[in-house]
Amino acid sequence: MSKQELVVLGQDGADGCCTGLLTTPLGEERAVELAKVFKALGDPVRLRLLSMIASREGGEICVCDLTPAFDLSQPTISHHLKLLRQAGLIDCERRGTWVYYWLLPETTDKLAGLLTRPGQPAEASS
Amino acid sequence: MSKQELVVLGQDGADGCCTGLLTTPLGEERAVELAKVFKALGDPVRLRLLSMIASREGGEICVCDLTPAFDLSQPTISHHLKLLRQAGLIDCERRGTWVYYWLLPETTDKLAGLLTRPGQPAEASS
Repeated sequence: MSKQELVVLGQDGADGCCTGLLTTPLGEERAVELAKVFKALGDPVRLRLLSMIASREGGEICVCDLTPAFDLSQPTISHHLKLLRQAGLIDCERRGTWVYYWLLPETTDKLAGLLTRPGQPAEASS
Repeated sequence: MSKQELVVLGQDGADGCCTGLLTTPLGEERAVELAKVFKALGDPVRLRLLSMIASREGGEICVCDLTPAFDLSQPTISHHLKLLRQAGLIDCERRGTWVYYWLLPETTDKLAGLLTRPGQPAEASS
C-alpha cells in the first residue's frame, strides 16, 4: 500500500527535527504536522483500535479480529484504520482475504518523547 | 475558575486506572475520556499555545503575550485556551486585567506514559 500519505514526524527542516513540545514554542509547520497525528488519536474508536493493534501478542492483528469488538460497519472500521495509517501510527498488509495491521512504534515513541518533560523520562503505564 | 469541566485522567474505575494504551485494549469509557484530551491536542493553534505556555520561563504566561503570536482574534484564542483547559492540559487565573496560564504537567506526563512502550522509557525530545 502507498505510504505517500503518511505523516512523517520529525522531518520538517524549517522548525528543526524533534523539538520538544514542552520546551520550545512550536513553529507553525511542525504544529500542523503534529496536530494531524493527535487528531487521529482524538477519537474513541481509533484509540481502541490502536490499543487493540498495539497490545496484540505477536505484534499484528487481522482486521477480522478487530471488527467484532465494535458495533460498527466494516467500512466505518476501515475508515478509522485508514486515518490511523495516514497519521503514521500503524501500517498494514493484505494477505489473501484479510488485511493485517501492526503498530509503528516510532510514531508513538516520538509522541511520548514530545510530551515528556526534560529530566523526567516517562514511565510506561502498566 | 471552575474545574468541574476538567477531564480527569486515570480515574475511571470501570477500566482501571492508568492502563497503558499500548499494552492492553482500552475500554470504551477510558477511550472516550482519553480521546477528549488527544482531540484538544489535534489542532495546530492549540498545540502552539500549549508549547508557548509549557516552555515559558517562570512557568506561566499572560494571555497578552500569547495573542500577538497569532493572526487570530482574542475570542478565538480564548476559545482554544478554554478547550485546552477543559482537557486538563492547562489551568489559569485572572489577576487584574489579564489572565495567566500554566501547564498542568500531570496530564502531559500521563499521556507520555500511556504512549511509552513498557521497558522503553521515553526520552524528552530536545
